Amino acid sequence: MRFVDLIEKKKEGRPLSAEEIRYWIRGYVSGEIPDYQVSALLMAIFFKGMNPDETLELTMCMMHSGDVMDLSAIHGLKADKHSTGGVGDKTSLVLGPMVAACGVPMAKMSGRGLGFTGGTLDKLESIEGFRVNLERKDFVDQVNRIGIAIVGQSGNLVPADKKLYALRDVTGTVNSIPLIASSIMSKKLAAGSDVIALDVKYGSGAFMKTPEDAVKLAQTMIQIGTGMGRKVRAVISSMEAPLGKAIGNALEVEEAVRTLQGRGPEDLMDLCMAAGSLLLQEAGGAASAAEAERRLSEALKSGRALNKLADMVASQGGNRYQILHPEMLPKARCQTAIISDRCGYVHDEKAMELGSLAMRIGAGRAKKEDDIWNEVGIVLKKKPGDYVQKGETLAVVHHREMLTEEWKDSCRQAFIIAEEEPEVRPLIYEII
Amino acid sequence: MRFVDLIEKKKEGRPLSAEEIRYWIRGYVSGEIPDYQVSALLMAIFFKGMNPDETLELTMCMMHSGDVMDLSAIHGLKADKHSTGGVGDKTSLVLGPMVAACGVPMAKMSGRGLGFTGGTLDKLESIEGFRVNLERKDFVDQVNRIGIAIVGQSGNLVPADKKLYALRDVTGTVNSIPLIASSIMSKKLAAGSDVIALDVKYGSGAFMKTPEDAVKLAQTMIQIGTGMGRKVRAVISSMEAPLGKAIGNALEVEEAVRTLQGRGPEDLMDLCMAAGSLLLQEAGGAASAAEAERRLSEALKSGRALNKLADMVASQGGNRYQILHPEMLPKARCQTAIISDRCGYVHDEKAMELGSLAMRIGAGRAKKEDDIWNEVGIVLKKKPGDYVQKGETLAVVHHREMLTEEWKDSCRQAFIIAEEEPEVRPLIYEII
Repeated sequence: MRFVDLIEKKKEGRPLSAEEIRYWIRGYVSGEIPDYQVSALLMAIFFKGMNPDETLELTMCMMHSGDVMDLSAIHGLKADKHSTGGVGDKTSLVLGPMVAACGVPMAKMSGRGLGFTGGTLDKLESIEGFRVNLERKDFVDQVNRIGIAIVGQSGNLVPADKKLYALRDVTGTVNSIPLIASSIMSKKLAAGSDVIALDVKYGSGAFMKTPEDAVKLAQTMIQIGTGMGRKVRAVISSMEAPLGKAIGNALEVEEAVRTLQGRGPEDLMDLCMAAGSLLLQEAGGAASAAEAERRLSEALKSGRALNKLADMVASQGGNRYQILHPEMLPKARCQTAIISDRCGYVHDEKAMELGSLAMRIGAGRAKKEDDIWNEVGIVLKKKPGDYVQKGETLAVVHHREMLTEEWKDSCRQAFIIAEEEPEVRPLIYEII
Repeated sequence: MRFVDLIEKKKEGRPLSAEEIRYWIRGYVSGEIPDYQVSALLMAIFFKGMNPDETLELTMCMMHSGDVMDLSAIHGLKADKHSTGGVGDKTSLVLGPMVAACGVPMAKMSGRGLGFTGGTLDKLESIEGFRVNLERKDFVDQVNRIGIAIVGQSGNLVPADKKLYALRDVTGTVNSIPLIASSIMSKKLAAGSDVIALDVKYGSGAFMKTPEDAVKLAQTMIQIGTGMGRKVRAVISSMEAPLGKAIGNALEVEEAVRTLQGRGPEDLMDLCMAAGSLLLQEAGGAASAAEAERRLSEALKSGRALNKLADMVASQGGNRYQILHPEMLPKARCQTAIISDRCGYVHDEKAMELGSLAMRIGAGRAKKEDDIWNEVGIVLKKKPGDYVQKGETLAVVHHREMLTEEWKDSCRQAFIIAEEEPEVRPLIYEII
């Protein structure tokens, strides 16, 4: 088999055989097939796509390129959740405890943030003492004991994806549905869960720009999961504006706690209820969405969901009092209000722009090696559809260093304000 | 400027600016831009193409990536000819002397063969003593004295193309019209000629499979040449069957000599007259195709064209008697007839297959390092449209080692024979 023949085949729009895909992934991971041939194939895949059989085979090959977690020591159906990434997305911190409080074990591996998006591990590390690295045995024990653990990736999971993603990132081949789907699903499948809720985002702050593409991506991932005998469901949600009101690690933990106390922003709550309902229906024995939502609401009202988060934090070495008393989370030295220079309705809040601005003041990383500051970030005081007076506060910036005028202007300009009342689209576009 | 942004731009179908193309070629030649990014861009170009401005800029950047020949010391308009490659293509050996005999200086750089195609330098080296490497001064002097020289590439001509072509070859990005056009034209322009006749081939034995694509490629190259102030014309010709009857280095020199004696195969003669006529009209002061053809015919009949070849051979150290008495060229130890196992009309002779078969018995190279045997090859006894009896000879193989039965069967099967008389398409599809 010559790799150039695989490239020609895909270039002509013909599907690759299972054998050819195995040859590709094995040869690439072993270093026999060079980057420059793989990047040409990736670009041909961008243009010509992959059919469901190819996408499933690619996912399986990537999944088996490294360790595959065996979670059989955890009792019951293990649930996981994946978001395609966004700004202000603290869903895992809310959804995980809610679902765990309803008896569905959440054994979750999360990642770190890069660029304008944040990462769940970074958010959790703003809690004093919190450890994201657990031994496998401790991870399993904690899920069996408490019902939830959120940890960093351990072992050598999906090395093929690491290598492929790094190449896609520098060759303009990120935004291909089969490549995104196989990348996400290979990691989720290797992480060993039985039931997966996907939060697939669309909009200017997401990989998928349109809801239609997000639906396509979700369907592709569901096909893969089903092909591997897992239960996979998806919520399609908008990522035009940030999710919730807080952007920045400690600020997002605080917002997650308030949401678990029933005082969170509506969009975040809606998303957690929708995704939680899917998990309870698939893994928690809920006979209907209504039953699932009733159980989730009870877990919130009773305080059991918040206690789950506090228990998890404590079990992973963190300070549980910062969860029960979020005012004890790290606080920024400076707070600056961003003031509206006009009146009108907020039409849009540019998620990617606000995420980048938060990164620039230390809430995120431009490069993997960068340090982050836990306490900094942006808290939105207005959401799309709200009316704002001239001179009113649009957002409060929590910062450590002086803000430049250029930064403040950019922040102000991330809010699109106009006279007429906007039609605010619901956060959730579809549930699949 | 980030190279990944250029890839994204082309992927979306937007044209690259002149500055971006310069950044690409400079960065690639210097090694700053890695192969894996360039191969992704090449694949995007395969799918999205390049407009005339981009193609011209790419050609100029490649041309100026190395030495550019200054042929101003040669008197008059310098002519060159380029064929997109084929099997049995000895046009340069016939056309060059014909045109030079009509007073148009031919300062020609040629290449070597690889795979199923032969190379003019290899053919010339089957003449005893012939040297393809001349000092630049000797090259210019010879063209001024005799009117023709055919040499190997000297100096560091178009290093960008060497590097890019090697990458295209292993990444499935060879058959893109703007990439082929800029590759050919950058070399022709760097070689310094004023007037260029292109022989653009189509068919199963050529890069371009259809005459329409060959016309597109020719038009692209003409646009480039015109943009650089050169006169470029093109003949579009078929490469389904080999050109002429001989395949193999000494065998092709012999056929070239016979053609210069007016006894050559009709297809080869037609092509040389067509391309020669273009060069005489553009560089030799011929007012019409008819006048050009009359002058070329006179050069043949008078023996001046054949003498030009003999003079060139002698001037480059070769044995001129092998030209004047081609029976003195190296002869193969063994000759084997390939016999038809049926009667009928020859519909097709698979050029690529016959070229590969000749390569396998030593007439060509599978890899650059391989040795070739000058005297071996295949001489066709039938051409498309001819009737053949069962038991009649289709071809005579000139060989050094035993032929296997499998080889002989493959050779026989390269002739497509059927009962009904075929419609034989003319060799020349169009003159542009």
